[in-house]
Amino acid sequence: MPTFKLVVAYDGTQFHGWQVQPGQRTVQGVLEEAMSEVLGVDGIRIHGAGRTDAGVHARGQVASFSAATRVPAIGIRHSLNRKLPDDVRVTASHEVSDAFHARHSARARRYAYRLLAQDDVLLRRIAWRPPRPFDAEALAAAVAPLEGEHDFISFRAAGGTESRTICRMATAKWSAWEGGVRFDVVADHFLYHMVRNLVGTALAAASAPDPGAAMRAVLAARDRRLAGITAPPQGLCLEQVDYAEESS
Amino acid sequence: MPTFKLVVAYDGTQFHGWQVQPGQRTVQGVLEEAMSEVLGVDGIRIHGAGRTDAGVHARGQVASFSAATRVPAIGIRHSLNRKLPDDVRVTASHEVSDAFHARHSARARRYAYRLLAQDDVLLRRIAWRPPRPFDAEALAAAVAPLEGEHDFISFRAAGGTESRTICRMATAKWSAWEGGVRFDVVADHFLYHMVRNLVGTALAAASAPDPGAAMRAVLAARDRRLAGITAPPQGLCLEQVDYAEESS
Repeated sequence: MPTFKLVVAYDGTQFHGWQVQPGQRTVQGVLEEAMSEVLGVDGIRIHGAGRTDAGVHARGQVASFSAATRVPAIGIRHSLNRKLPDDVRVTASHEVSDAFHARHSARARRYAYRLLAQDDVLLRRIAWRPPRPFDAEALAAAVAPLEGEHDFISFRAAGGTESRTICRMATAKWSAWEGGVRFDVVADHFLYHMVRNLVGTALAAASAPDPGAAMRAVLAARDRRLAGITAPPQGLCLEQVDYAEESS
Repeated sequence: MPTFKLVVAYDGTQFHGWQVQPGQRTVQGVLEEAMSEVLGVDGIRIHGAGRTDAGVHARGQVASFSAATRVPAIGIRHSLNRKLPDDVRVTASHEVSDAFHARHSARARRYAYRLLAQDDVLLRRIAWRPPRPFDAEALAAAVAPLEGEHDFISFRAAGGTESRTICRMATAKWSAWEGGVRFDVVADHFLYHMVRNLVGTALAAASAPDPGAAMRAVLAARDRRLAGITAPPQGLCLEQVDYAEESS
């Protein structure tokens, strides 16, 4: 039974997140339904690399599934895109080894969080305008201590159940985009609400006399109560998931 | 009776354009309805600087109206924003001289048209992906001949009724944005569908051996049949309208 890898992009605005939930419109649910129609097989389970929350977007979500089909990967992509609603697109599809699993095989994930410098009716679906103005240099100083291997448990929301709270963070940096600034963060794995909590904490730390020291203190405390607010979902986008070459 | 100037931003996706039409959701209609509620007066007519088409966006549309009210401009802005749907925002409001008229007093308009280099589910509401790949340098060469004073009748769609087809174009240039390239164009006035026809023609000219010569030929011909396709509305945004200082 062949195994397939899909790269999936979606506008999360109208979804209750990735994961199937009874009675809710979810990306996984919409994909599985379209897949059943395309392959004429019921009950196909699609695994996603990241369980994005309600309102979170993706440009490079990765999904995997196995199905008894002779339809080639490129045909699955085109057929799915004909069935899928406009706010979900399959941007790539490949047949992969049986051992491939979108979540377990992933080596690194890249998320972006976009902040608006001012209200913008065209960009508000994909970015967040914080209640107070922000300073780009102070934000940069605040996230500098995050790169490297750390216990990120201070940034895990209640409800997170990950057994391993140490993450290897390859990148944590801000850059300019059309609407304001954007936070790019790459790590081997992420804890529940971690990126959104990092953004909320960076905004708070940026107002401190020494933003880097303020962030280091939260990181060292291993205590969620010291971190900042959870930034809202619409600013977050799962941009890319990386795999070891042999597995994809 | 005081006269007011409003700066209005909207996501054009769910509107049948600016201008009131019976039975259709239009920006002017939504604004006039909210204004009647806010001021408790029926039949207020709001004039817009540009009659944007269905699907076209605005960050800096300007509207003007006169009304017998003692509500100050800032109060009108806040009250309107409480009544208006999420996809229209009033970003500024001022009391102006009685002679001010959003369309007649305007000295220059700036539009942006955004092209996507690849399909992007997050940006497709505000940009267009042309059917063929484009070359940024060739696009730049294609629009270079547009700056200055010219008869732009070749770029006016059927249905345009402007008596003056000569426009003074202060800026016509491409630059990079997150999704690909964006065309910024500033002129004293624009003809019907002119920006979208300029974009379609620039894409066609960019494939010619000499893109600048191809554009000059269309401009000189004064013949709509030589221009390219009309690029679709969702890539277009009215970014700003300028007035002489004394009138606003």
